Amino acid sequence: MGISPPRHRLRIKLLQVGNPNIRFCQACGSPTKQVIPDGEEKVRSVCTGCGRIHYENPKMVVGCLVEHDNKVLLCRRKIEPSYGLWTLPAGYVEVGESAAGGAIRETLEEARAEVEILSPFAQLDIPRIGQSYIIFRARLKTPDFSPGPESLECALFAIDDIPFHSLAFSSVIVTLKMYIEDIKAGKLKFHYCTINKRPGASPSDLRTFDIDYHLHS
Amino acid sequence: MGISPPRHRLRIKLLQVGNPNIRFCQACGSPTKQVIPDGEEKVRSVCTGCGRIHYENPKMVVGCLVEHDNKVLLCRRKIEPSYGLWTLPAGYVEVGESAAGGAIRETLEEARAEVEILSPFAQLDIPRIGQSYIIFRARLKTPDFSPGPESLECALFAIDDIPFHSLAFSSVIVTLKMYIEDIKAGKLKFHYCTINKRPGASPSDLRTFDIDYHLHS
Repeated sequence: MGISPPRHRLRIKLLQVGNPNIRFCQACGSPTKQVIPDGEEKVRSVCTGCGRIHYENPKMVVGCLVEHDNKVLLCRRKIEPSYGLWTLPAGYVEVGESAAGGAIRETLEEARAEVEILSPFAQLDIPRIGQSYIIFRARLKTPDFSPGPESLECALFAIDDIPFHSLAFSSVIVTLKMYIEDIKAGKLKFHYCTINKRPGASPSDLRTFDIDYHLHS
Repeated sequence: MGISPPRHRLRIKLLQVGNPNIRFCQACGSPTKQVIPDGEEKVRSVCTGCGRIHYENPKMVVGCLVEHDNKVLLCRRKIEPSYGLWTLPAGYVEVGESAAGGAIRETLEEARAEVEILSPFAQLDIPRIGQSYIIFRARLKTPDFSPGPESLECALFAIDDIPFHSLAFSSVIVTLKMYIEDIKAGKLKFHYCTINKRPGASPSDLRTFDIDYHLHS
């Protein structure tokens, strides 16, 4: 399914309301105001002292789909949100590292597992919460893993045994479903999709999202 | 080529120096200090008033590789950096939109072209400057385009006529080279790679980067 441009040519569909959480300028400490800067079409947090415009960009969450003996590695969360539910080892990329490097680091931190990245597997955007998940296929360098400080336990699951009713996030459900489909079809692809979370939904509510579109390589 | 984890288990290789540009807290306006917070291993900008930790994440740049009649659409930049050089229509994703939606918007803004996204094509991380490029293949919905306010001109180039000596950015060179290879091989893939820019290099210097690794679907 293709994705189409905004309805009216050169017209931004949605004028966002700015972000009232950006109340002060990071550079000079002056208060910000919510205005549409010259030459732009959206409300931004603009510094009343130095004039700096504070843009807001989505954050990349990176993680690994670790394969071992026809199983995948999941971690049970020891932190909120979704305490006690299963997830892929994943977390925010930091400035100065690559997405693949961040995914390796998060797997080391959450599952104490040393992995090698095999291929890119999926990008899942969640515009409503300003997150973009980048997931890589990876393999264990040795068959060792154990829960890191943010995990209650780590375990390998055959694809038919994945605990779909106790997964932590919509992005994890979607990733694992696409992966199982690919494995059953005998061909791994790269997937891009957008997850449309309904307003007010809890991150652990598995029924409150749709896939807006899904493209693949 | 695979990518391997840091050498020492559970040890972060590089302790970053924090970001002295984050001098004040966005939430309360108090000055920040550069310290290693409890339970962490890296220096962060931490608010001396409310204690908030200011993390820094890479920014996603999204763009389109627009195909039309066996040609691709390029824009000549009317803004710095790389004024006068050719690029793909691309720009930062905003909070509230998807990567694909941002790529469509940027193409509309820079080339006044309405496109439909066909497939994900590449992710190129540039850790040194905190950017991650996400590039999609797209097609023109109508054969119309013209320079937007940030472009001097827009034009379609056959792959043998791409102006490789006047391209604007390393990410654009790498994307177009991978695309031409795929086209000549008769098979389009999804590519993930990391561009290692050498310190102090100008963004328009085409000789100052290496590809650290390159994986594909």
